[in-house]
Parts: sequence; structure tokens; C-alpha cells
Amino acid sequence: MSQESEQGTLYVISAPSGAGKTSLVAQMLKQDEKLGVSVSHTTRPMRKGEQDGVNYHFVTREAFEAMISRGDFLEHADVFGNYYGTSQVWVKQTLATGQDVILEIDWQGAEQVRHLMPDCVSIFIVPPSPEALKDRLTGRGTDAPEVVARRLNEAADECSHAVEFDYLVVNDDFDTALDDLLAIVRCHRLRMQAQQVRHSGLLVRLSERH
Amino acid sequence: MSQESEQGTLYVISAPSGAGKTSLVAQMLKQDEKLGVSVSHTTRPMRKGEQDGVNYHFVTREAFEAMISRGDFLEHADVFGNYYGTSQVWVKQTLATGQDVILEIDWQGAEQVRHLMPDCVSIFIVPPSPEALKDRLTGRGTDAPEVVARRLNEAADECSHAVEFDYLVVNDDFDTALDDLLAIVRCHRLRMQAQQVRHSGLLVRLSERH
Repeated sequence: MSQESEQGTLYVISAPSGAGKTSLVAQMLKQDEKLGVSVSHTTRPMRKGEQDGVNYHFVTREAFEAMISRGDFLEHADVFGNYYGTSQVWVKQTLATGQDVILEIDWQGAEQVRHLMPDCVSIFIVPPSPEALKDRLTGRGTDAPEVVARRLNEAADECSHAVEFDYLVVNDDFDTALDDLLAIVRCHRLRMQAQQVRHSGLLVRLSERH
Repeated sequence: MSQESEQGTLYVISAPSGAGKTSLVAQMLKQDEKLGVSVSHTTRPMRKGEQDGVNYHFVTREAFEAMISRGDFLEHADVFGNYYGTSQVWVKQTLATGQDVILEIDWQGAEQVRHLMPDCVSIFIVPPSPEALKDRLTGRGTDAPEVVARRLNEAADECSHAVEFDYLVVNDDFDTALDDLLAIVRCHRLRMQAQQVRHSGLLVRLSERH
């Protein structure tokens, strides 16, 4: 019997800072072995405790710009003078092994990815209220008011693009939001297109008349 | 703020007999208060223990045929001389209240519903193997071989239409299959289109700049 190979799904997850995205994604990865996360390339200096190839692939500006011109990136951005990008080759190779991949990127990155990989599934996470967001972004109150104001406005800009995403998860209760995210992944694995590949033999045998 | 009303989702669930559909749907309804099931109209005689309006809406052939000619049915079928059908009015009114509705129908009914309500979500449930199906349909071995053969061929015909559905759930382990079905429902409630209505105020407030 011919066997088409199982193809993973690409999940693009965005959120304003302070929405809890990073903790939620970390927990998703723990609970679901078939989920992997993309390690970005960056030109920013390695910080203490970070490992090349684990936290980021640390590369020079020249190397990064050469990758841009070769079209190696699925998405990339210049953030305060440092480049960040997602390798297209790695993502496509990983999906081809049947593994699902999560990209944690901002709305602009999500827009680039949707353009290049229209089958991706995009999820936006929001905090339950503007007050909750403000509390989380104000932190311990030691930051200058203009720094806090910039963060709040960046969060507002990010949220104004929520409607461009396929799914919206409200992170009011952490466990509920986590179950929401895991349900989205579980549901997408049950789509006929994916299941047909996984269970092609079964469907053929069940349809045989006696 | 203008408030579009929340619209429920219509789930069409089909399966060969012996796949465990009825028990799975009963359990879904128990675990999820926002799910309702459509009560069909039928012309077959009421059996002992059945209640009009609970198990079925029991109507005469004349009444049923009048409903057909008025286009009252979302789907209907003549099964061994008895009519069975799903009221279009009831389904649409229920969805308009924000409640999700499950229809348990065969692939032909599903085809009719997809045509009239293209936004419905259709799920096909299969047993884990032809052997498991055969065991369940052969029952206690007291049925005539030709009755068993007819049942098996009907099941095979039904399964040959599985690929027309949006999702495939394999009922190998009951609890896993139940969680699969509940994940599909949970996931569809998180779609941006639905969430945007539910959380329109939140999205507006989160996007306000300071």
C-alpha cells in the first residue's frame, strides 16, 4: 500500500509581552512530545547562561545578511539593531518528519510566515484585561515611566493585530489557557487530511464489502 | 459597543453502526453543557419506553410529507419504509442562541446538511479495525448470517464516505476518542471568528494606546 508520509503542522503563536506566552509554550512542549519549538538565529551577543543552538543560533551580522539574501529565513526582523530570524530549511525539514513546530514570533513575523506557509495555524494569546496587562508590564515599579509607556504602547500595537490570527486564547487562568492551546493542537491532528495519511490502511480495509 | 450575537456551531457526526457513536455522543452531552443534540422527526411507531419530543418527534406520514414539501428538513431519509428527518427551524433557532448542536446522521444526511449549512463541522468515527467492527456487529451470534452480512456491508458503505468529513476519530480507547471529540469542540470555540464576538470589548480595550 502506498504510504504518503505524515506532515507536521506549523503553529505560529503571538502575544503582547506580559500575556504569559513563553510560560504557556514551555508547558505545551513539556506535555506534548510531538511538539518542537524553532530555535531562532540572532546577531545579538550571547548572554551569560545561554547556549549556542539551544537558546539561539548566534551568528554574525555578515552571516545573517548572507542568509537573508539567500532567502533562508521564513521571517526575520531587526529589533533595536539586532537581527532575529527563523530558518526556513529547519522548519520545513522538521515538519517533513511529522513533528509539529511552534514559532513564537510577533505579528509582523506571523504575517511573513502566513505568506510563505499558508497552511500554518496561527494563535494569538491575550491577557484577560488591560489592567492585568498593565500590572504585568509595570513590573516592580522600578522602571522609568517612559519605558513603561513604550512597553504598553507596543503591547497595544501587537493586540491590534489579533484579529489576523486563526485562534484567540485568553490567558485568564493558566491551566485553562494551556488546555485551550493543547486542544487546538489535538484538534488539528484529527483533521481528515492528516488522519487519512495516518490511517489510510484502516480506511481501505473498513470500506471493503463482504 | 455594538454586540454581534454569539452563534453556535453545528456538528454532524457519522459512523458505521458498531463504532460506538451513540455512547460517545451521550458522554459528550454529559460533559459539555453548551452542547445539545437535535431530536429527529420520524414516522416509525413509538416503542415502549420512548417519549414523544425526547427520543423522537413522532408524526404521521402525511405530516412528515407536508414538512418535506415546505422544505422544513435540513436532511431526511426513508429507512425501510419509515421517514427520519432533522428540523431546519429548530437547528437554526438553537444555533442562534449560541448553543452548539450535534446531529447524529448517516453520510447521506451529512451530505444534505453540508449543502444547506456549509459552516457545519463534520466528524466521522471509526472502530480501530475491521475485526473489532465485525465482533460488534455479529453480536451474540444469534442473528442469521444474511442479516450479519447486510449489516457488515452497510458499515463498509458508510466507511467508504469517511473522507468526505472534516475530522476522523478512531474509537480504539473510549476515553481517548471522547477527549478527541471534546477537543474538536473546544478548538472550534477558540476560532477567531467566534472569539471576536465573545471578546470584542476586550480586544478593543487592549488595543488602545496610552
